[in-house]
Amino acid sequence: MSLLAIDLGGTKLAIAAFSEDGKLLTKDVVALERRGGGEVGRLIADAVSGYRRKAPSAVRAIGVSVPGISRSKTGTVWAPNIPGWDDYPIVSEIQAVVGDIPVGVESDRACCILGEVWQGSAQGCRDAIFLTVGTGIGAGVLIDGKILRGAQDIAGSIGWMALDKPFQDKYISCGCFEYYASGDGIVKLTRELLAGSPDYRGVLRTFAGDRFSAHHVFDAHDAGDPLAISVFSECVQYWGMAVANLISIFNPEKMIFGGGVFGPALKFLNPIQEEARKWAQPISMNQVAFEPSGLHGDAAIYGAGFLASNLLQSA
Amino acid sequence: MSLLAIDLGGTKLAIAAFSEDGKLLTKDVVALERRGGGEVGRLIADAVSGYRRKAPSAVRAIGVSVPGISRSKTGTVWAPNIPGWDDYPIVSEIQAVVGDIPVGVESDRACCILGEVWQGSAQGCRDAIFLTVGTGIGAGVLIDGKILRGAQDIAGSIGWMALDKPFQDKYISCGCFEYYASGDGIVKLTRELLAGSPDYRGVLRTFAGDRFSAHHVFDAHDAGDPLAISVFSECVQYWGMAVANLISIFNPEKMIFGGGVFGPALKFLNPIQEEARKWAQPISMNQVAFEPSGLHGDAAIYGAGFLASNLLQSA
Repeated sequence: MSLLAIDLGGTKLAIAAFSEDGKLLTKDVVALERRGGGEVGRLIADAVSGYRRKAPSAVRAIGVSVPGISRSKTGTVWAPNIPGWDDYPIVSEIQAVVGDIPVGVESDRACCILGEVWQGSAQGCRDAIFLTVGTGIGAGVLIDGKILRGAQDIAGSIGWMALDKPFQDKYISCGCFEYYASGDGIVKLTRELLAGSPDYRGVLRTFAGDRFSAHHVFDAHDAGDPLAISVFSECVQYWGMAVANLISIFNPEKMIFGGGVFGPALKFLNPIQEEARKWAQPISMNQVAFEPSGLHGDAAIYGAGFLASNLLQSA
Repeated sequence: MSLLAIDLGGTKLAIAAFSEDGKLLTKDVVALERRGGGEVGRLIADAVSGYRRKAPSAVRAIGVSVPGISRSKTGTVWAPNIPGWDDYPIVSEIQAVVGDIPVGVESDRACCILGEVWQGSAQGCRDAIFLTVGTGIGAGVLIDGKILRGAQDIAGSIGWMALDKPFQDKYISCGCFEYYASGDGIVKLTRELLAGSPDYRGVLRTFAGDRFSAHHVFDAHDAGDPLAISVFSECVQYWGMAVANLISIFNPEKMIFGGGVFGPALKFLNPIQEEARKWAQPISMNQVAFEPSGLHGDAAIYGAGFLASNLLQSA
């Protein structure tokens, strides 16, 4: 007997099998290779069928993590990075292949905190938040053991958090917090500081005008580059303020940091905590623990596995 | 058969009776007159006993709204404005008077949103937020029909929201949002603008150095005073940003505005909505309705009544 967990990302699909007691048995990854719409749906269906054919034991439940919004009322998915997935009927499509095996879908941000609760840093927590900072920014929020969804399943869109007045037009496409402090934001902030520092002759200058990634800025920081140090000093303020706001609003037991940026930004966890301490409700601040993801890049797929496990409990 | 609702404020105690179908039958108000600690507890117990002696029908359940934190695990209350109420055992004290009639206690912010759900602007809502702006600032948050508490019952402390970097020491005692945009904040902001406007000769100058209240600034605004207009232009930005953050985080159906400042600040609801629209997650922003409290100053006591009604349902 096994649980099947699917983690759909913007560029790849991972499929894992867990034993019913939560042990990871197998994991495979397939690149999406510019597939869109129904092609991605078929890739998932084929992956499920393929696993079931070769599986040593029967699949009892299937959980899916999607990079977007899972509409709980319809079982459809909005995933902005997958062409044609505005309202994609992924549950019914998998269900057509597997018959009456239960299938559940959640957003990746929800799956990340569920994964941490199951086998990561949030084990035993009823109130915890997974802050994911990568290309974009989002939060998976657990409240008294349940996922925060909101009226239309788009709660946790914290990349839109307003942190520095007045409003500037550059925030329109992604929100203020994400503009400055996502992976893309680190690059934007570096470009802004470069433009305002004509006398700077450091290593980041060579990237000006070219495509470069947050990793170049992390490397420059580690080499003592003053402009990179300024960039992360700004980012630490934004991360600290946003985390402070989540702490004052939710009074969680744990704040968990993951995504591609945390990652290398985990070295800033102490400064982020000190920045948050300045702003947050002091009693809540004293009660919350800051922790890195206990599952590294696998939080979402563990969450999908937990989703499958929960379907089994409630079946 | 009736429900008893008690609304303890910082300066007065209100006690109301509701019929089981939610009709307000009676309401009395007693000033606290500098009472603290056990005196306030006895005042509440006496009010309950007094009502029961003269009541035409039996009291079936009692709900209490408190100006602070209701600790759900212990039934004790932390109310910073009532001397000696650091961990006050109000539930057991009322229970000692009424025997086995069920007694429930919630924070005033929680009671406000519960009251609006019962008979105010949030009727029929599963996800809604009551923003209360008075001397201080707080939020009562309803998520899928339940009150957001947090791990230690202090969720919703949005007066601490970080909205304008960098951190300034003046935020330490109350938080950034409350510093600028509470009733006290309106006065502080006015003093700051007065200090920075030596050429201003308007009506607010006469208050400089004296004690004055937000109402003077509202009056000056309505008379076209330019400094008062600047104060509320700032406040609208802070209110708009804070509301935007709640919308992006919670994806609620409704944002409800109450407390002493909303009140007169309801005239700014459209500008606040426009400010919030700049910052918030756009899909969530398009789905949320902005409304004044439907119960005016009585949201908390209606919420206490609803609390009593719910105790009856679950009994």
